[in-house]
Amino acid sequence: METVLPYRRLSDFTQAIFIKIGSTTEDAQLATSVLLRADLRGIDSHGIARLSGYVRLWEAKRVNARPDVRLVHESPSTAVVDGDGGLGLVVAPRAMEIAIKKAETCGTGWVAVKNSNHFGIAAQHAMMALDHDMIGMAMTNASPLVAPTFSVERLLGTNPICVAIPAGKQPAFVADFATTTAANGKLEILQRKNQQAPTGWIQKKNGEASQNPHELKDGGALLPLGGDRDHGSHKGFCLGAWVDIFSAVLSGANYGPWVPPFVSFLAPPADPVGLGIGHFLGAMRVDAFRPMEEFKHHMDNWISRFRSATVVEGESSVVIPGDPERESERDRATAGIPINEKVIEDLTQLGTKLGVKL
Amino acid sequence: METVLPYRRLSDFTQAIFIKIGSTTEDAQLATSVLLRADLRGIDSHGIARLSGYVRLWEAKRVNARPDVRLVHESPSTAVVDGDGGLGLVVAPRAMEIAIKKAETCGTGWVAVKNSNHFGIAAQHAMMALDHDMIGMAMTNASPLVAPTFSVERLLGTNPICVAIPAGKQPAFVADFATTTAANGKLEILQRKNQQAPTGWIQKKNGEASQNPHELKDGGALLPLGGDRDHGSHKGFCLGAWVDIFSAVLSGANYGPWVPPFVSFLAPPADPVGLGIGHFLGAMRVDAFRPMEEFKHHMDNWISRFRSATVVEGESSVVIPGDPERESERDRATAGIPINEKVIEDLTQLGTKLGVKL
Repeated sequence: METVLPYRRLSDFTQAIFIKIGSTTEDAQLATSVLLRADLRGIDSHGIARLSGYVRLWEAKRVNARPDVRLVHESPSTAVVDGDGGLGLVVAPRAMEIAIKKAETCGTGWVAVKNSNHFGIAAQHAMMALDHDMIGMAMTNASPLVAPTFSVERLLGTNPICVAIPAGKQPAFVADFATTTAANGKLEILQRKNQQAPTGWIQKKNGEASQNPHELKDGGALLPLGGDRDHGSHKGFCLGAWVDIFSAVLSGANYGPWVPPFVSFLAPPADPVGLGIGHFLGAMRVDAFRPMEEFKHHMDNWISRFRSATVVEGESSVVIPGDPERESERDRATAGIPINEKVIEDLTQLGTKLGVKL
Repeated sequence: METVLPYRRLSDFTQAIFIKIGSTTEDAQLATSVLLRADLRGIDSHGIARLSGYVRLWEAKRVNARPDVRLVHESPSTAVVDGDGGLGLVVAPRAMEIAIKKAETCGTGWVAVKNSNHFGIAAQHAMMALDHDMIGMAMTNASPLVAPTFSVERLLGTNPICVAIPAGKQPAFVADFATTTAANGKLEILQRKNQQAPTGWIQKKNGEASQNPHELKDGGALLPLGGDRDHGSHKGFCLGAWVDIFSAVLSGANYGPWVPPFVSFLAPPADPVGLGIGHFLGAMRVDAFRPMEEFKHHMDNWISRFRSATVVEGESSVVIPGDPERESERDRATAGIPINEKVIEDLTQLGTKLGVKL
């Protein structure tokens, strides 16, 4: 069961909640637009459904509502940002602004972020580059729920990567994906529907294959993209590891099994190896490589060619990365956002507690 | 059947062949060390087994043995290199040197390459950064053999990515992987052994699943990492597309189905959209983010933690990316390189034709 609510109502509510926990108006506005971009783009698991999760982290004193986000180290094309324990929703866009500024003068800009928290959807940050005729990249590490190939321990997060590439007449190419077979949000959908997962998504705590979407509660794990060794899970592990190292070993955040979990009922490890969670953000000016008009022409050609490929019977076309999310955004911005009843209930309780009406 | 030959014998032969087709001694030495690095590291499909393929491309006037490799565009942290139709084995290391120089002054360096050809193994180029206390990256597009999710057309190459990250006491982390479920070399092994492929590696020309390793000869295709939509092949497609766009749309090379095939018996498309094939190379100075000693300490900790993870019964440990290749390199450098009989036969014929004794 879902109720469709207009964007404005959700955004007023979310902003009021962030202000109640102590955010400045400016930060609350920014955090709201970043968080709800997930709902607009159809990534329901990463949007307003997580709002009470952020508040619980704040209650547990694991989120700083008034962070002093600081650039702590830099070179002409790089920087390290200390998020001061703030919401990733606020820290990541600030860091991305620095990456874009560096790219303006230097061709590219690369910012590693420590001492941050969950940053919403990676696409939101990478896409900031598009308006500047730049390619944007964003990655983050996350709560350890993923077992590398052969491991029974959960050592990595679903560690997403986004690459956003501008085009001309065609809409931008925006690939935003977890480096696991399936993101945790996909598993949550199966849990709600009480349906089995496909093979290759999860394993039991002893490493045996499982299709039970509740397996993680019993010590099971999500699996790297590929699923198992025969199907290339070692490559998914490479991807997740790369994201973890760029986001955290390069920045000074926690990495691997030390990443503090997003859920407040799980305590962060007692022996941290860094500060908070980490992100890695990048911007590359297209004309640092090639005149923008030429690039646009060829991106349009690339996209058209792939979109018009001959497809298997029963499918309408090859899906260009970013198309489904853009269509969702167009529809939901006007028609409103369908919110799951359980989420509405949770938000209503949150509102009651903090004195904000949904 | 295999014969073990010492590295020196293979390298003398390869160098002589490159000189015979017109390479300078310097280029022949460089191309040889790059090509044979694949054999040393156990990636037999990308090494000396391809030597006669390069020569056939040269015979077809599709490789320029005396290229004038030129930097044609640059910003402080970026460059575009025109490989002048040279061997990728020579062009890519020259481009990577530029990336490293840029990183020295600017923190990072990113070089897109057009008008090049097959560059051997990506790891060879990315690893050049390690000696400079830098992180190295290398990617390349390749002959179109891969069908994106839902497509029956082959529109992408196996488009590999390598990320090489230095450590301290631990050996470097070197992830080098095709963005398909399995690289073409793995398929060739099954072809030789006449064994079936696992599910999710290949499809028939109508898009139906197949386990026949000879399927590509009948219009079938390799599949993006993930194998099918349920198992995340749209993410593998994102990865392959990303590599293609960075390598070729950014540089001005051919992309997607226009990439000229490596095999000389397939003509390049009559309507090229760029020059040759493309690569994308990067170098990031670690201390542009964090003091090298700190970074090394944490990379060592990362690697140790993952290497010592509890594993499923029957496996000895989580495999750190780069470990198997490093072990192969150590063994083969002294014990010699096992060469398949068919490859020896092919090399002997090549030597006879060009007047070089194997």
